[in-house]
Amino acid sequence: MNDTAPFVLTARDARGVVTLTLNRPTAFNALSEGMLGALEQALGSIAADDTVRAVVIAAAGKAFCAGHDLKEMRADPSLGYYQQLFDRCGAMMLSIQRLPVPVIARVHGIATAAGCQLVAVCDLAVAASDARFAVSGVNVGLFCATPGVTLSRNLGRKEAFEMLVTGEFIGAEEAREKGLVNRVAPPEALDAAVEALVASIVAKPRTALALGKALFYRQLETGIEAALADASRTMACNMMDESALEGVQAFIEKRPPAWKG
Amino acid sequence: MNDTAPFVLTARDARGVVTLTLNRPTAFNALSEGMLGALEQALGSIAADDTVRAVVIAAAGKAFCAGHDLKEMRADPSLGYYQQLFDRCGAMMLSIQRLPVPVIARVHGIATAAGCQLVAVCDLAVAASDARFAVSGVNVGLFCATPGVTLSRNLGRKEAFEMLVTGEFIGAEEAREKGLVNRVAPPEALDAAVEALVASIVAKPRTALALGKALFYRQLETGIEAALADASRTMACNMMDESALEGVQAFIEKRPPAWKG
Amino acid sequence: MNDTAPFVLTARDARGVVTLTLNRPTAFNALSEGMLGALEQALGSIAADDTVRAVVIAAAGKAFCAGHDLKEMRADPSLGYYQQLFDRCGAMMLSIQRLPVPVIARVHGIATAAGCQLVAVCDLAVAASDARFAVSGVNVGLFCATPGVTLSRNLGRKEAFEMLVTGEFIGAEEAREKGLVNRVAPPEALDAAVEALVASIVAKPRTALALGKALFYRQLETGIEAALADASRTMACNMMDESALEGVQAFIEKRPPAWKG
Repeated sequence: MNDTAPFVLTARDARGVVTLTLNRPTAFNALSEGMLGALEQALGSIAADDTVRAVVIAAAGKAFCAGHDLKEMRADPSLGYYQQLFDRCGAMMLSIQRLPVPVIARVHGIATAAGCQLVAVCDLAVAASDARFAVSGVNVGLFCATPGVTLSRNLGRKEAFEMLVTGEFIGAEEAREKGLVNRVAPPEALDAAVEALVASIVAKPRTALALGKALFYRQLETGIEAALADASRTMACNMMDESALEGVQAFIEKRPPAWKG
Repeated sequence: MNDTAPFVLTARDARGVVTLTLNRPTAFNALSEGMLGALEQALGSIAADDTVRAVVIAAAGKAFCAGHDLKEMRADPSLGYYQQLFDRCGAMMLSIQRLPVPVIARVHGIATAAGCQLVAVCDLAVAASDARFAVSGVNVGLFCATPGVTLSRNLGRKEAFEMLVTGEFIGAEEAREKGLVNRVAPPEALDAAVEALVASIVAKPRTALALGKALFYRQLETGIEAALADASRTMACNMMDESALEGVQAFIEKRPPAWKG
Repeated sequence: MNDTAPFVLTARDARGVVTLTLNRPTAFNALSEGMLGALEQALGSIAADDTVRAVVIAAAGKAFCAGHDLKEMRADPSLGYYQQLFDRCGAMMLSIQRLPVPVIARVHGIATAAGCQLVAVCDLAVAASDARFAVSGVNVGLFCATPGVTLSRNLGRKEAFEMLVTGEFIGAEEAREKGLVNRVAPPEALDAAVEALVASIVAKPRTALALGKALFYRQLETGIEAALADASRTMACNMMDESALEGVQAFIEKRPPAWKG
C-alpha cells in the first residue's frame, strides 16, 4: 500500500455486480478530497452503465470509514472551503440514492461520522457482528449535521438524537434493531450475507428495480395521496415492460420467467 | 363455494362492529375487479352509516390476500387499463384510512403484494403467529410500488426497501417488531386478540375516535407547528362534545361515564 | 407540601445543568394553569441564559405527570377556553424542542396524556423500569390529539395509533423498544442513568449542540436535498467556531481539547 494506490478499487463480476472498495486502510478510509473524487468518478461510471445490476460498497483494512479527513480539513480553515466540502460530500451521498440499482453497504470495523452517513444513505446494509457505528463529530466539537440527515431517516427520532449528542458507539445488533442495517453476520460469514442480498437482487429485472427504487425515495417526500398516484403511474409503466409481462405470464403458466436479464 | 358467492361477506354485531371477510379462498382472495367492487361497496356503506363502531377485515380460506389477480391483469395489457386499475385499488385503500372508525386487519396465512398493502393501510393489525408477509411483485418483475407507499409508512426505510427488492417473506413476530402489525397471537387465539382491540375501541365514544383518527393521519403530513395547531383545534372541539364533557365529569366524580354510545 | 409551594422547583449545578422538578405530587403533577405558567417561566429563563448546558425535567411524588388538570378544565367549558388552553400547552411543549440545549425527561411512575406528550417532546428520555406510559384521554372521551402529534413522531404509526385508541399503558422496556424513551434503569439507578447522558452532553461544546439541535428538528421537516443543503451550511458554520477548530486540532495532536466550556 502506498500513496499512489487507487483510492477506490473497482471490481465487477459477470452478473454486473460492482464492488467498490475504499482503499486507504491506514487512514481508516477517510473521505479525503482524493477519496471523494474517486467515489464520484466510480459512482458516475455506474450511473452511466446500463449493464450494472447492483453495487456493494466495501472497505479495505480494519475500518469501514472514519468520516472526513480532519487533518486535511484543518489545514486551511475558511467558511467557503467547508461549505464547498460538505456540499460536495452531500452530493456524493445523494448520488448513491439516485443510482438506478440497489446499493449495499458491507460494513466491518467502525463506521463513524460521514462513514456512518455512508451506511445510512445506502439502500441496504449488512454488518459484521463486531462492527460499530457512531456519529462522533460532536466529540471534537463538530456536530454531525449532514450524517444526521440520513441517520434520522433510518432510526427513530430519539435514537438518532442520542447518537448525535453523545457521539457514542452502538454495536451491529443494536444498529439492526434501530433500522440502520438490515442484516448482521459473523465476520467470517459477512460476504455470504452480502451475496444473499445480491443474488436476490440480480434475479429480478433491472427495469423493475430502477423504477421501484426511484419511486421509493420520491414518494417518501410527499403525502400519501400524491404518493399513491405516483406509485400507480409507476406500477402501470412497470407492468407494460416486457419483463413484467413475461414474469406475470410465466407465473400464470407456473414456469420460471425467461428474462433477458 | 362457487363463482356466484359474494366476494365479501359482511357480518355485523349488536355493538356496530362490522366484519368484512374476503371470500374467494380458492383464489387466495386476490383483489380482482369483482373483489375490488365488493370492497368499495362495503366500505362505502360503512362510511355512510353512523352506527358502525369498528371494522375488522378478515379472510376465508388458507390465505389472507395474495394481491392483484394476475390472470385478470394479464388478459388485456394496456397502460390505460393498468393505470385505472392501480388508481382504483389505491383509492379503495385510502378509503380505509378515511373511514371515521378504526379498521383492524385480522391476518392469517399469507398477505402478499397488495394483500400486504391492505394490512399496512389498516389502522391496526393482528396476526396469527404463522402468518407471513411479503411484497412479492418484484419476483415476477413488477415492483410493488403502491404497496410500498403504505409499507414505508409502517416500517423503517431500510426494512421496507429490503422487502420490496428481495420479495422475501417475513414472519408475524418480525412484522410486529418492524411495525407492520400490532399484536401476534397463536392461530387459535387470533379471534380473541382481535376482540380485545375491538372491545377497547367500542368502549370509547365514537365522536372522539372519529375526530382523532382523521387528525392522526392529517397531522402526520405537516410540520410539527401546524400539526400542534390542528390538534389543538381538534381537541377543543372534542372537549365540547357531550361525551367528553360527561367523561371528564364522571372521572372527577370517580364513576363510570354514562355515554349514549 | 401546600398550595403555596412552587409548581416547579429549579435546581442548577456548577456545570449549568438545570433540573426542573414538577412539584404538585398530590395532583400527580397535572398541567394546570399554575403548572403551565411555572414551566413557561422556567423554560423562558433557560432560553435566555447562555450558561445553561442541559435541562432535566423530573417530577416529585409517585407520578411523573398525569396530563391536563381535568377538574380545572371542566369548571368553565367553552370552545374558546379549550382552544386557548391547548394552544398554550402546545407552545410550551414546542419551546422545549426550541431550547438551544438538550432536554432530558427523567420519568418514573406514570406519564399519561399530556404527561406522555411531555416525555415525547423532550430530546431524550430515561425511564425507571417500572414507569408506565399512556395517552389515556380517550378513556374519558377526549382523544389525545396534541399528545398524538409528538407520540407519532417517536413511535411507529400503528404503535402510536394503538396507544391513542386503546388508552392502554405500555411499560418502560416496551417504550424503549418503540422509541419513546432512550434508556431504562432500575428505579435506584435512574439518577445515575440520567447523569450518564448529562455528563456526555456537558463534555461537548455548547455551540455545536445548539447548532446541531436546531438543525436536527429543522431538517426533519424538509426533503432530503434541502436537508443536506441546510446541514452542510450548519456544519460549515460549526466548523468555523473556535471550539470545533480547537477540537479538531486537539484530535490531530492526540490530546484532549482545551475548551472554554
